[in-house]
Amino acid sequence: MNNFTYQNPVKIIFGKDSIGQLDSLLPKDAVILITYGGGSIKKNGVYEQVITSLGKKRTVFEFGGIEPNPLYETCMKAVEICKKHKITFLLAVGGGSVLDGTKFIAAAAHYTDGDPWEILANKAVVNSAIPVGSVLTLPATGSEMNSLAVISRDNTKEKLHFCSPCIYPVFSILDPETTYSLPARQLKNGIVDTFVHVLEQYITMDLNTPLQDRQAEAILKTLIELTPRLLSSQKDYDSRASLMWCATQALNGHLSCGVVSDWATHMIGHELTAFTGIDHGQSLAIVIPGVWKYQFWDKSKKLAKYATNVWNIEGLMEIDLAKAAIDVTEEFFDDMGMFTRLGDYDIDVEIIDRIAERFKQRGAILGENNAITPEVVREILISRL
Amino acid sequence: MNNFTYQNPVKIIFGKDSIGQLDSLLPKDAVILITYGGGSIKKNGVYEQVITSLGKKRTVFEFGGIEPNPLYETCMKAVEICKKHKITFLLAVGGGSVLDGTKFIAAAAHYTDGDPWEILANKAVVNSAIPVGSVLTLPATGSEMNSLAVISRDNTKEKLHFCSPCIYPVFSILDPETTYSLPARQLKNGIVDTFVHVLEQYITMDLNTPLQDRQAEAILKTLIELTPRLLSSQKDYDSRASLMWCATQALNGHLSCGVVSDWATHMIGHELTAFTGIDHGQSLAIVIPGVWKYQFWDKSKKLAKYATNVWNIEGLMEIDLAKAAIDVTEEFFDDMGMFTRLGDYDIDVEIIDRIAERFKQRGAILGENNAITPEVVREILISRL
Repeated sequence: MNNFTYQNPVKIIFGKDSIGQLDSLLPKDAVILITYGGGSIKKNGVYEQVITSLGKKRTVFEFGGIEPNPLYETCMKAVEICKKHKITFLLAVGGGSVLDGTKFIAAAAHYTDGDPWEILANKAVVNSAIPVGSVLTLPATGSEMNSLAVISRDNTKEKLHFCSPCIYPVFSILDPETTYSLPARQLKNGIVDTFVHVLEQYITMDLNTPLQDRQAEAILKTLIELTPRLLSSQKDYDSRASLMWCATQALNGHLSCGVVSDWATHMIGHELTAFTGIDHGQSLAIVIPGVWKYQFWDKSKKLAKYATNVWNIEGLMEIDLAKAAIDVTEEFFDDMGMFTRLGDYDIDVEIIDRIAERFKQRGAILGENNAITPEVVREILISRL
Repeated sequence: MNNFTYQNPVKIIFGKDSIGQLDSLLPKDAVILITYGGGSIKKNGVYEQVITSLGKKRTVFEFGGIEPNPLYETCMKAVEICKKHKITFLLAVGGGSVLDGTKFIAAAAHYTDGDPWEILANKAVVNSAIPVGSVLTLPATGSEMNSLAVISRDNTKEKLHFCSPCIYPVFSILDPETTYSLPARQLKNGIVDTFVHVLEQYITMDLNTPLQDRQAEAILKTLIELTPRLLSSQKDYDSRASLMWCATQALNGHLSCGVVSDWATHMIGHELTAFTGIDHGQSLAIVIPGVWKYQFWDKSKKLAKYATNVWNIEGLMEIDLAKAAIDVTEEFFDDMGMFTRLGDYDIDVEIIDRIAERFKQRGAILGENNAITPEVVREILISRL
């Protein structure tokens, strides 16, 4: 087991009618900016619950229109509002994109060393941020309980992340009933995103970490078990609740304690989204089988363990178990109606070349063993056409 | 799944040579009281590592002699030292008893409403405490990452707990190598304590919480797998590391999210220790099979699940799986050389009657369904003679 440091201060308020606790979680004199996305919260009753809980005596501003893959350009408009109205608390109401956008707004509003894009492009240190709280409506990114945010830039087609202890949400309210109105596409994206978050921390070199491996398997097995019910029944409270808790636990830091993480799939997936606009979950379902095939010998031991412990495949040699693990994962995505090939989205070699070229310009080498060069990224993506 | 709130702010520093980070975790101007137990830290090198990390420029006092099942009487002596020297930081170096004692010292030193015993006896609210940090040397109680402490009183033979967000350690340093010198008895107690912490949050009514159940099973399976190696090999780093992380995860609050906990075994075990002085782990190994038999119909579904998922017992009816679960758990304790009967410690009916009488005086009803009356406690203990 590797050495590690773990700390996560986020307060989670989980369950039915939990939005009613919102007002008690906010400082009495807060000047609040509510941030949200395309407006679904105004149709499904979540916005009304938020406003009802806040009451009429608070100073509240609103900023809507944070898009999926939240744009730097959009966030900077909110930063202006924060400065103009001296906002002291940001309340993100929505999914991971709204949360990520809000985390960037929080950091950018306090950033005084130049263009806040530096936080993403050059990992400029974030020393301060407006406090953020969230009401989550889409289980997927884990952003509600971590210190990470991913932001896109429209004019350069970039998608970059940053990380800072300053952007842990102070609290996150998770009411599984808010997910009842999610379209199937977003639900599937959320399942795949959660599943791949776990895989990127689990299917890596074996460091003799039986507890962490089983904690990863716990989430994977639960997701596999729940998926048919999640996709067939919109108002099954317990399955929505379990999905929501799986998604939070998948990326709140505890799975990566003492193990090596990979994240090559996410890094390549971000570029696919940046260049083509396909959803984040869609990009991951395409990329991960390819990453595994190109790191097969480094990952075969864990792939075999995953085949046996998660998929109950037995009686094969390690190498065949590992191969079966890749196949069965791809089938899992197929079965839920997620495409797993670039061709399914009409993405061709031209895009692949642009992605490889970008990694080359950045000098980026990916993967747990720093073995995925831009040339290997190209090969991986070619294998997924 | 039940509604829940979860927050745990403790910073965990885990791994080889991690005590070297101690100085950087403490406020520069802290007036520190190092608390410890019977002095094993001065034999196994831990004390030296602590002093070396702190350097020569700090203001440091010491308080040794915190006993297993830390006594109120002992802790109050440390409270005097805290007041006399205006201690601003308590550094607990040792196992769960040293940590629990230190948490009580921290709260008692700031308690101004009378006798701090009220915190334990009448759950007087703790609004403030001296900050606590820890260097853990015994994986067992989970105290290093929770807000709980259990304190005994010599003159009345009581053992009571209290809970407050004020007593979360600011940080806990977990170096698995500090456990190499543990005597087998303490190691076994730690394994059993960890195992039973998980069971008291897992073997309860079924609320359709597949993720939490699997997270519990993850720790149980890992402990079962590790125990032979832990008991036969003193310096197997990875198994010590996994045990240490299991113990922390077993009682840091995340297993109880959304489920019902029981804690009858712990409550009865505390009284056994209070009256007879047997170790905490020893008391749990005796009591839990009895608690399960007397709550058999309430727990049979989860017991059967545990038999199958943790012990790989299959092909039986649910009721027989549940019975097998009780038997195999008792065998697990037996096999590691833990006694499971009161008679093994020459504890007789007189003690049982005193325990039942005490619960009666307190009006205490135990267990997940509030069904374990003082009379049932008596029956449970009689069944364990």
